[in-house]
Amino acid sequence: MRPHVLIVGCGFGGLEAARALCGSRGADVDITVVDKTNHHLFQPLLYQVATAGLSAPSIAAPIRQLFRRQRNVTTLLGEVIAIDAQARIATLKDGARLRWDHLIVAAGATHSYFGRDEWAAFAPGLKTLDDAFEIRRRVLGAFEAAEREDDPARRAAWLQFVVVGAGPTGVELAGTLAEIARHTLPGEFRRIDPRQARILLVEGGPRVLASMPERLSERAREQLAALGVEVRLNTRVTGIDAQGLDLGTADGPQRLPSRCVLWAAGVAASPLGRVLAETADCALDRAGRVVVAPDLSLPGHPRIQVIGDLAAAHSHVPGREPRPVPGVSPGAKQMGRCAAANIRRQLRGEATQAFRYADYGNLATIGRHSAVVDLGTPAGALRFSGYFAWLFWLFAHVYFLIGFRNRFVVLLDWAWAYWTYDRGARVVPGGMPAALSAASPARDVAGGDRPPAA
Amino acid sequence: MRPHVLIVGCGFGGLEAARALCGSRGADVDITVVDKTNHHLFQPLLYQVATAGLSAPSIAAPIRQLFRRQRNVTTLLGEVIAIDAQARIATLKDGARLRWDHLIVAAGATHSYFGRDEWAAFAPGLKTLDDAFEIRRRVLGAFEAAEREDDPARRAAWLQFVVVGAGPTGVELAGTLAEIARHTLPGEFRRIDPRQARILLVEGGPRVLASMPERLSERAREQLAALGVEVRLNTRVTGIDAQGLDLGTADGPQRLPSRCVLWAAGVAASPLGRVLAETADCALDRAGRVVVAPDLSLPGHPRIQVIGDLAAAHSHVPGREPRPVPGVSPGAKQMGRCAAANIRRQLRGEATQAFRYADYGNLATIGRHSAVVDLGTPAGALRFSGYFAWLFWLFAHVYFLIGFRNRFVVLLDWAWAYWTYDRGARVVPGGMPAALSAASPARDVAGGDRPPAA
Repeated sequence: MRPHVLIVGCGFGGLEAARALCGSRGADVDITVVDKTNHHLFQPLLYQVATAGLSAPSIAAPIRQLFRRQRNVTTLLGEVIAIDAQARIATLKDGARLRWDHLIVAAGATHSYFGRDEWAAFAPGLKTLDDAFEIRRRVLGAFEAAEREDDPARRAAWLQFVVVGAGPTGVELAGTLAEIARHTLPGEFRRIDPRQARILLVEGGPRVLASMPERLSERAREQLAALGVEVRLNTRVTGIDAQGLDLGTADGPQRLPSRCVLWAAGVAASPLGRVLAETADCALDRAGRVVVAPDLSLPGHPRIQVIGDLAAAHSHVPGREPRPVPGVSPGAKQMGRCAAANIRRQLRGEATQAFRYADYGNLATIGRHSAVVDLGTPAGALRFSGYFAWLFWLFAHVYFLIGFRNRFVVLLDWAWAYWTYDRGARVVPGGMPAALSAASPARDVAGGDRPPAA
Repeated sequence: MRPHVLIVGCGFGGLEAARALCGSRGADVDITVVDKTNHHLFQPLLYQVATAGLSAPSIAAPIRQLFRRQRNVTTLLGEVIAIDAQARIATLKDGARLRWDHLIVAAGATHSYFGRDEWAAFAPGLKTLDDAFEIRRRVLGAFEAAEREDDPARRAAWLQFVVVGAGPTGVELAGTLAEIARHTLPGEFRRIDPRQARILLVEGGPRVLASMPERLSERAREQLAALGVEVRLNTRVTGIDAQGLDLGTADGPQRLPSRCVLWAAGVAASPLGRVLAETADCALDRAGRVVVAPDLSLPGHPRIQVIGDLAAAHSHVPGREPRPVPGVSPGAKQMGRCAAANIRRQLRGEATQAFRYADYGNLATIGRHSAVVDLGTPAGALRFSGYFAWLFWLFAHVYFLIGFRNRFVVLLDWAWAYWTYDRGARVVPGGMPAALSAASPARDVAGGDRPPAA
């Protein structure tokens, strides 16, 4: 009987681990991949689905299809809710039990509202395709509602978009919202001018893209301003409700009316971290991530490895201090390859090796012609911003997209959007926000540019 | 003050009416277009979204964008729930009131379960993008559930797909399901063979595609059989529940287990028909369609016109018996143009003209390389089926798709699907059917091809 490797989660980490285990250099194992959804998601471009630039199938690939030719891989749609580290059994939500010889947990992260879960209803985050559709619905719905609103103050609240958190996702969302308001929608409304929409990016810390070098953060802030995004640094969010936000600033509390708040501030590890902590008695860090041994295994449980955003992992270079691995897709992929290699070593009776993160750099896009790039090269850091950084970002992302067809379709959509400013996926299945369908007192709405005769 | 034309519904009829009123030959009017969704849907290809061949944005265009350059057109997202024919006011669900000088009601149709609305939960129909996503979820989810099911009978029920109604939509759905089971999915599952899926097309009448000439119906039946679809004619559905269908056949009642039933049998006019009947005292036919005067107006209400699937309209050719207009997109478009022309005539003080339907023919696709075409030409009827009919169908549909970009993307997706048998949109946002996530007694599931060691 061949050993059975169970991989929980098919994001960048889980996919890479499965591939490394079943490739030509692969181990002689059976692999089961369990994921809550039927697709692997290219998360770096998810904000494009949320902002109607790409359709969902362009950045998502059916997991089964990815493993079609790997006959030793079984794909299961399901959610792992319990793990028994001693009996080596994982239990799915529907009661199915999976026995494993080696377990790789790559369940990723979700958004965190810092204990204020009631904010979720008013400020959706962006982790899944469902999240992206919800954001698309709210953003486009806000312009629709503004077109229908007669009261100037209420109209302004519909046209005030607030993105909370100025990490890569927040910066991308804010920059793209500005592009939609300034370039995509003008001309399509008769009673509002979409260019009057205000896009605010609220950040608790002192700069945007805090993981970037300070100079690139400053460039990013300038580029955001040039796109029409108002950046508010050192500003904490103290409350969110259906009508807007409460902010804490150096000048005291402030109220910001907004009907469309997007959350890009907090990340929390998957609840599977807590499940692991209970069964394997391991430690979690403040974000709920699992503290792993240098070889990515759970301390005392060499057959369980935790990788990707769920792991609080360090990069180990001989002779240097261990450094935390950033929560980016190259980190998850490298951990996936390391976990697979360590399972092969265990099967051969060899010692496992510590994880070592190769940092190829950091890039973030801001909007049309705007991005910042920070590359580590043998000759030292290479940092640039602006048009060439944007081109670099664009081709790097298309290159890493999975599937030839998807790459081609995304390039095509982007070329179209570039030349026409059109966003091809501005389609919202089903209804729009409740405000547009709820019953309310009768009032007259003008048709055409002028109110028609009564 | 220019006259205000209110158009309710932006399907083929409403869109064509609005375009005819605002083009170069347009009348000097203000136009308001109200629709429940933010997009015009190219319904003839909706089955491709349901069966994961196309992404939603490929066949849907934002209504606002379509009227971007027509400054006299206002687009409103909303649902008309009341009409006052005397006061000339339409009321939206949120209470907004619209006064109109001329009203065109093009609210279309929905599916009908012949009074058995409880079937809707078990057999979704296909009219909207939401419907298409629901069908995509159920079809792909059934294969996922079959892969997880150990009991042979229950597994067979997951792999038995039943399409009710053998009109164009039912034939397209059944043919495409067969293609998915035979060509797209094989190789991706480890415990089931998707080719063992049974696709049944159940029809109460004596032939498929009843609106086609008898010879083409027979060809279509043969082509369906060649694709692997079992066609059951003269078979009535007497019950549908979560586990399958009850059928009434010549041999007596029969039970058909199935976990995925699709409804393509009944069409009912929009509920706005009843609203019109109350305010304007007009007659409805058995399907709830509004019986209109020869010029498409409501009898006694020359300022109200009803077009498209909501209208029980006739084609009037001098010297011949009036003939009913079929419920196809060319009919709706021609009615839209006629309604616009009659409004222009009314504004000039001229008499309106009766609607005359130009029948260019009828085509239906069945699956790869399979279609039937029935063209009316000046030289007589031109009827053909098979490969060239399929090519004809394909290019005719791409030609009529709205927007250059969409045409190109659809052609690209089709070319890709043709060569690879892949279906690019096999992505289901969010969860799968409840059966896959509901809690149930614990049981063991094998990983890999063989059950792993206990």
